[in-house]
Amino acid sequence: MFTQLGIIGCGLMGGSFALAAKRAGIVKRVVGYSKSPSTTEQAKRLGIIDASAESALRAVAGSDLILIAVPVSAIEATFKAIRQLIEPGALVMDVGSTKRDVVDAARRVLKDRITSFVPAHPIAGKEVSGIASADATLYQGRQVILTPLQKTPAELVQKATDAWAAVGSNVLRMTPENHDAAFAAVSHLPHILAFAYFNSVARQPAGRDFLSLAGPGFRDFTRIAASNPEIWCDILMANREEILKQTQAFRHTLDAMEHVIRTGNADALEALIRSASDARAGWQMNAGTPGSAR
Amino acid sequence: MFTQLGIIGCGLMGGSFALAAKRAGIVKRVVGYSKSPSTTEQAKRLGIIDASAESALRAVAGSDLILIAVPVSAIEATFKAIRQLIEPGALVMDVGSTKRDVVDAARRVLKDRITSFVPAHPIAGKEVSGIASADATLYQGRQVILTPLQKTPAELVQKATDAWAAVGSNVLRMTPENHDAAFAAVSHLPHILAFAYFNSVARQPAGRDFLSLAGPGFRDFTRIAASNPEIWCDILMANREEILKQTQAFRHTLDAMEHVIRTGNADALEALIRSASDARAGWQMNAGTPGSAR
Repeated sequence: MFTQLGIIGCGLMGGSFALAAKRAGIVKRVVGYSKSPSTTEQAKRLGIIDASAESALRAVAGSDLILIAVPVSAIEATFKAIRQLIEPGALVMDVGSTKRDVVDAARRVLKDRITSFVPAHPIAGKEVSGIASADATLYQGRQVILTPLQKTPAELVQKATDAWAAVGSNVLRMTPENHDAAFAAVSHLPHILAFAYFNSVARQPAGRDFLSLAGPGFRDFTRIAASNPEIWCDILMANREEILKQTQAFRHTLDAMEHVIRTGNADALEALIRSASDARAGWQMNAGTPGSAR
Repeated sequence: MFTQLGIIGCGLMGGSFALAAKRAGIVKRVVGYSKSPSTTEQAKRLGIIDASAESALRAVAGSDLILIAVPVSAIEATFKAIRQLIEPGALVMDVGSTKRDVVDAARRVLKDRITSFVPAHPIAGKEVSGIASADATLYQGRQVILTPLQKTPAELVQKATDAWAAVGSNVLRMTPENHDAAFAAVSHLPHILAFAYFNSVARQPAGRDFLSLAGPGFRDFTRIAASNPEIWCDILMANREEILKQTQAFRHTLDAMEHVIRTGNADALEALIRSASDARAGWQMNAGTPGSAR
């Protein structure tokens, strides 16, 4: 399907895609570039890439599939670095957790090469990062959101869809705006709450003692608080408009719970809990496919 | 070790203790009582109890180990119902998630029989409740907090410790006050945040679409939002003083995160995330044993 995959950014996401694409047989050769030469070397030693490139531009040369897997704040600079060598017909994708800023950057920088770009967001990850955590099964059974531009050729969007399907993902299409609103709600806000919650407990005088008593509910609730600070700082800054709408909505429901607790209104409290509990019990991961392109 | 275990409340907690105690060989016979006769029948049919009692009082008659496994708001009424037949030397425990209110109720109701009572809180549970979910391994490797009163005989506290150790738990001792402060922080507040968060997302106009896109981070973060409404309403009401202190502390750290996001202060945001991420990465369940009695 592709002759050469160029990955820019040899971390968990890029490395896992390289492994999965090779295993699926959709790429013959993988060339990788990473800001840190020792990371690129490690990726080669681990057999995740076949050759290391000295620059992002060199990773693009001769590649008909290019995956930009760097933090969202570095995507615009990457576009600038690679623009010249994107060949007509090549497919360029990112894996960023926000899409409006990435599409804006693409419009600014890629100019006529923008028709090669299909913005992608795979809903997959781990709390650990780095090439050593790369995993050929990371994208299996996960959703991948594509937010193609109006002028993107339909056959290129299909190629992108096929590539993600080949590594085991379910592909959906949305607008960048809908994407960013949805992920502010279901991903970015939970991360903020988990970070804020952990800081809140850990910084109390008795915090250490408290934490030593925490059980499995706490463990699962706070798992995402261990996420990579650099990556998450980027995401939260890139999508801050939508995120601040979500924190606002959350404050209203938190206010409501606190109010009924403070005033001792047990019936109202139980109703609020039941509403959340029933909704969560009825939720299933990957159950719906709104706007699905499948 | 014991001749007869009487369990009052045939749900997940009581049923699991009965199964585990029998498997560990520390009780010969189990008598169970439940508010709903059909639940008691089911417990018998499942082989979790040997005999069903028609009242809480009858479950206590002839029992030298009594486990009160009802919602915290029903514990005082249970004390009243069983007080007359608690035999000298018998061990009475509860499994409530709050301890100050339970100790206060015991003082009010049990009077001279209070020397039989050792308040207990096993840090174990599931999002599912009910006798059908009873599990002999529920308490294995979990912490159990005992908050004995000053006048409780040391040998009875030791008996309680041995009973929980026999079903695989690690036993700690604390004051009821320290217990309630700690669990407001590491258990009750996360539940409130998970309930409020789920309501906040589910009630938005596009909530259904948003939820269909949520991934594994969301799944784990919201697992506790599916908890039993009746039980959790009770817990949150019983410990509201400590809980409102914790929501206050949480609001401060949430305010701080929102402020740096709103003002675009990426360095400060990254520092806040890093502080949470490092602390969470260094946390391990059951790692510490403050005030341990082992």
